[in-house]
Amino acid sequence: MTTLTQTPHVHPAWLPDAAFAPVGSRRVLVAVGPDDGPVGGTVVDEVRRAVAAHGGSLTLDDAADGHDLVLRVTPDAPGTGFTRQRTGGVTVVEAGAATGLLHGLHDVVRAGEAAFGADHAPVTSRPVAPVRMLDHWDNMTVHPVMGQVERGYSGGSIFYVDGRVRDDLSRVAAYARLLGSIGINAVAINNVNVHRTEARLLTDGLADVARVADVFRPHGVRTYLSVSFASPVVLGGLTTSDPADPDVQAWWAAAADRVYATIPDFGGFVVKADSEGQPGPFAYGRDHADGANLLARALKPHGGTVFWRAFVYNHEQDWRDRRTDRARAAYDHFAPLDGRFDENVVLQVKYGPMDFQTREPVSPVLAAVPRTRLAVELQVTQEYTGHQKHVCYLGPLWSQVLTFPLADDATRDVASIVSGRPGPATPPDAALTAGGITAVSNVGDDEFWTGHPLAQANLYAYGRLAWDPSADPVALLDEWIGLTFPGADLRVRDTLHTLMDGSWLTYEAYTAPLGVGFMVDPGRMHYGPNVDGYEYSKWGTYHFADRDGIGVDRTVATGTGYAGQYPSPWRETYEDLATCPDELLLFFHHVPYGHVLHSGTTVIQHIYDTRADAVDVVTSWVDAWADLAGLVPDSLHARVTQRLTEQVRSATEWRDQVRSYFFRKSGVPDASGRPIY
Amino acid sequence: MTTLTQTPHVHPAWLPDAAFAPVGSRRVLVAVGPDDGPVGGTVVDEVRRAVAAHGGSLTLDDAADGHDLVLRVTPDAPGTGFTRQRTGGVTVVEAGAATGLLHGLHDVVRAGEAAFGADHAPVTSRPVAPVRMLDHWDNMTVHPVMGQVERGYSGGSIFYVDGRVRDDLSRVAAYARLLGSIGINAVAINNVNVHRTEARLLTDGLADVARVADVFRPHGVRTYLSVSFASPVVLGGLTTSDPADPDVQAWWAAAADRVYATIPDFGGFVVKADSEGQPGPFAYGRDHADGANLLARALKPHGGTVFWRAFVYNHEQDWRDRRTDRARAAYDHFAPLDGRFDENVVLQVKYGPMDFQTREPVSPVLAAVPRTRLAVELQVTQEYTGHQKHVCYLGPLWSQVLTFPLADDATRDVASIVSGRPGPATPPDAALTAGGITAVSNVGDDEFWTGHPLAQANLYAYGRLAWDPSADPVALLDEWIGLTFPGADLRVRDTLHTLMDGSWLTYEAYTAPLGVGFMVDPGRMHYGPNVDGYEYSKWGTYHFADRDGIGVDRTVATGTGYAGQYPSPWRETYEDLATCPDELLLFFHHVPYGHVLHSGTTVIQHIYDTRADAVDVVTSWVDAWADLAGLVPDSLHARVTQRLTEQVRSATEWRDQVRSYFFRKSGVPDASGRPIY
Repeated sequence: MTTLTQTPHVHPAWLPDAAFAPVGSRRVLVAVGPDDGPVGGTVVDEVRRAVAAHGGSLTLDDAADGHDLVLRVTPDAPGTGFTRQRTGGVTVVEAGAATGLLHGLHDVVRAGEAAFGADHAPVTSRPVAPVRMLDHWDNMTVHPVMGQVERGYSGGSIFYVDGRVRDDLSRVAAYARLLGSIGINAVAINNVNVHRTEARLLTDGLADVARVADVFRPHGVRTYLSVSFASPVVLGGLTTSDPADPDVQAWWAAAADRVYATIPDFGGFVVKADSEGQPGPFAYGRDHADGANLLARALKPHGGTVFWRAFVYNHEQDWRDRRTDRARAAYDHFAPLDGRFDENVVLQVKYGPMDFQTREPVSPVLAAVPRTRLAVELQVTQEYTGHQKHVCYLGPLWSQVLTFPLADDATRDVASIVSGRPGPATPPDAALTAGGITAVSNVGDDEFWTGHPLAQANLYAYGRLAWDPSADPVALLDEWIGLTFPGADLRVRDTLHTLMDGSWLTYEAYTAPLGVGFMVDPGRMHYGPNVDGYEYSKWGTYHFADRDGIGVDRTVATGTGYAGQYPSPWRETYEDLATCPDELLLFFHHVPYGHVLHSGTTVIQHIYDTRADAVDVVTSWVDAWADLAGLVPDSLHARVTQRLTEQVRSATEWRDQVRSYFFRKSGVPDASGRPIY
Repeated sequence: MTTLTQTPHVHPAWLPDAAFAPVGSRRVLVAVGPDDGPVGGTVVDEVRRAVAAHGGSLTLDDAADGHDLVLRVTPDAPGTGFTRQRTGGVTVVEAGAATGLLHGLHDVVRAGEAAFGADHAPVTSRPVAPVRMLDHWDNMTVHPVMGQVERGYSGGSIFYVDGRVRDDLSRVAAYARLLGSIGINAVAINNVNVHRTEARLLTDGLADVARVADVFRPHGVRTYLSVSFASPVVLGGLTTSDPADPDVQAWWAAAADRVYATIPDFGGFVVKADSEGQPGPFAYGRDHADGANLLARALKPHGGTVFWRAFVYNHEQDWRDRRTDRARAAYDHFAPLDGRFDENVVLQVKYGPMDFQTREPVSPVLAAVPRTRLAVELQVTQEYTGHQKHVCYLGPLWSQVLTFPLADDATRDVASIVSGRPGPATPPDAALTAGGITAVSNVGDDEFWTGHPLAQANLYAYGRLAWDPSADPVALLDEWIGLTFPGADLRVRDTLHTLMDGSWLTYEAYTAPLGVGFMVDPGRMHYGPNVDGYEYSKWGTYHFADRDGIGVDRTVATGTGYAGQYPSPWRETYEDLATCPDELLLFFHHVPYGHVLHSGTTVIQHIYDTRADAVDVVTSWVDAWADLAGLVPDSLHARVTQRLTEQVRSATEWRDQVRSYFFRKSGVPDASGRPIY
């Protein structure tokens, strides 16, 4: 049975007891049987806890009568997801499996009193993507510079302490409950950059991994491991990790056998190979298909899956060389391999061609490998979007990505592609087995889970969008507010919308302009401005600003040709300065500072204006938030106040550095006359 | 008695046995007595070792006859330094004290066979500066980012390991011997940024400090400690470190009493206060004179000295604010305090107003406090000059500094000022007690002492120039070559001169131009190029480059007024664009890229040309060095080869980044047509 006890001093996020009042004050029947396993038990536990707190009642007797809410597993209902209806004054949720019922229960919790209104016909909710995963870039040990969680901004790992898996996993249990409530069904529990200690989770650490899997299982979440491609050498003592070597194949098969003997529902492996120094098949003259299939064949007898990351590029680029384009790399590596991957390989593709920037075009790889199962990778942790010191609600970004009509058939958006839905132009031999949606988590052992309490909304929205990519991100935010601050004054809701609805665009407006990306400080781990921070680096991340203009020419006609990696109409849209959207202009084109945007202003004046305007917006948030004192918990209010102070400081620094940099370079005065240095 | 045993696997630097052949093959009389202490013993040991190796003889019997070399302590000789003459075929060195005799012995070693040529009249050699110190920025523990030795590029500390003073001090003994041989007579053995562990050297660690002092003493070197101004609080448990507080005064007095009870010839304290986060008197509303005198009064009964650093500035500057000028800070802080310091306080002033840059004007503080004892601080460790990965012989820089005629009387150069020599304009109440010359050491537990074997020459030249600032740095380099590579092929000498004589100017030519400074990478601890690396920082280190020009206006007329801190004629020389030397142009003036230098070229073309030319020079060194294979020890040859490879790579990066940065900003083509990006 799952533990529902709240860990002391940990914020309940979107599952405070009060959010369960509408359910908990009703007479509830939960009709599950022993076959429904630990997830069925979780449904029972949730309802039992709710009615105990709010005066309702629970029965498990399907023959009984007089219910306000019925939650039932039945073979008549869909195999995934659930159906909800209101009939004869009874709200009935039915699912073909316990996981669907758990999601149905939380659907009722989210709906609140509205779930108990007028009768209505059955409404079915099914997840679009079968796999909805969170990747944890957690390390077991603490790196002196990177900390324990790579790109983590919320304290230490909830999984590990002092180089080992925690004895007390109650925090993991609370996290699993949060994930289960929003439909997440997979977690990879260690960093894709697999260091020495963490590599051993696959072997010596299996008993501990099993303990973690035991905690996730009751919430419908399967456990995955990131593994090192060099494991046969590092862990097995072999002299090679060559995919063609029979000993290597046998080593992986035996390793997988041991994993599944310990954890029968183990999910599989996540692999970062031949990327940023991680080992991979290239060392043996093999390609990524050879590498991925090696692991897939070891997992296949057990039903496991390999998530193989497409984040492969030359990270030793020469900044002098404008022919090499990091944006091209994933396509150039993987498009030729389409059709070569085994059926239990999922190619995991970052949503943009670079690296989780505030604004990127959607990765063309997602349209380039129809015979390959795909997952799109998002980033909940705010690596490039303010380190959870800045309010930056990412729901709108992810919504744009997931609903982007990448293929020429407008019904084939990114969510459809990764879910395996065919379109008119889908080739007959396409891989229609779905991959899914995955993302890097943003939680740590911080009291508020996410450092910035409002960054909880990103985790929430990610889960909800992974279930239903067509959801309106502002509506999801509203849902999150209602759950997280149940019964709060309307001013709380209004102010949170003021701060958060457009916060991604506000963040964009004071940081790197018009899709050019980066300009973050390498020395501060991608936090704060440094316009030339990556300009003369090996990382392939340049803006090419000179005294006349800025931007990267990625056209087919005169540039790197990256635009040509897109299917029509996008290749033409991006290629042509006249049709390229303003927000991606500098990603695709090098233009003079005087170039006039579709918005009617020049590039340089846009840089000046939007940065200054955005800081005014952020500054206004401080007072707005101050007005909520006493209306939200004091400790949460204080934490947000402290973060907003830093956001104003940092945004001001962004504004002044970016404006001054481009004034010094362009010599064009700011028509608004605002201060420039 | 001192240990002369060579530590295994440590390079002998400029004291290989072979360098002692001319002395060791002679009949030598050493006339010292028990009153001459451990230093007298060192002279005897050195000669004994030399004659044992080279077939000569040693007698201690002053009545004996038939000597080739006489080394004698006699009250007739000068109290410091020594006299050398050749008379009747006998070389006679006489000194008033054992330390002088040790220096006289090494003078003979350096002269080699030439010391045994024709008769000549007595030549007296006295050190200009009475204190010739090396500061070690060594920590007892290893910082994950900074390493063990702050700004150390030669491995770990020779003094400390695992958080404590080493048990085996044989490496320190070998170092002490090297220092004694070139006239260094003081070392501060811990970092001026005094961390928690190191603070305790003053109290709990005294027995260990005494062991170190015992090792230095036989070589004429006194031991100093860097201390924390907050010691009364941190170590003493007091609630304040206020200089006016009687308990604080009593604490320091007692601390000094304990030190001298353990180490009777202890040198004193080095203090970095109210600087870059170190504690100081400002916290109590006191000034630096109050702070320095507090410690001085504790040391005075024992004859100890406080070296109080003038490196005080606002390190939280706003880059937007062009009125604040870090270069002004030391003068602004300390000039008003002239006359307020006790007589056993020495104000320790970095040679330039910024921070050990490749090129800076000499600090005006050195001319601004005639009633204050002064030491000038140099930096042997190559913090801003290539981290001992680049060949950069700094003798010429230090020579320029020490012989710079700072005061209007040309006889008052920097060396004279810090040595307390009066000039015509010296005020009647001037402090004519000398301070001295100090520098940050560049050694570590590296096999070659200094990482780059050729960086040993910097340590050598520093000691020799501290003794005689008028020495020709190229001649000193020649001397170092002869000692370090005794009997080597002439090609070795020629090639080393080719690589090293002008290497400082070569380094300058591919890094920051025309005195503007910095442009180093903050993320790599000041290694490698990053033109804007400090441009928008809090550190006060800016170049203000825009599309039209570059440089810092420090004139009185239109700038920060820093030029006005100099006495005539320098204030006029620097103020006027027509007379300001090219190499300091951008330190004092903001000029258009088209400004024509005295050299006849424009600023921008100078930037382009010198960077490209300098890389050609460095590249030529690789082949020149390769030709020495077999002519120098293999391990040394390999180490230098490896460093030269890195120097070419790094210099190329400097060249291309700086050229491209200014091309992108200025739009001016390189008239030479060489590649630009």
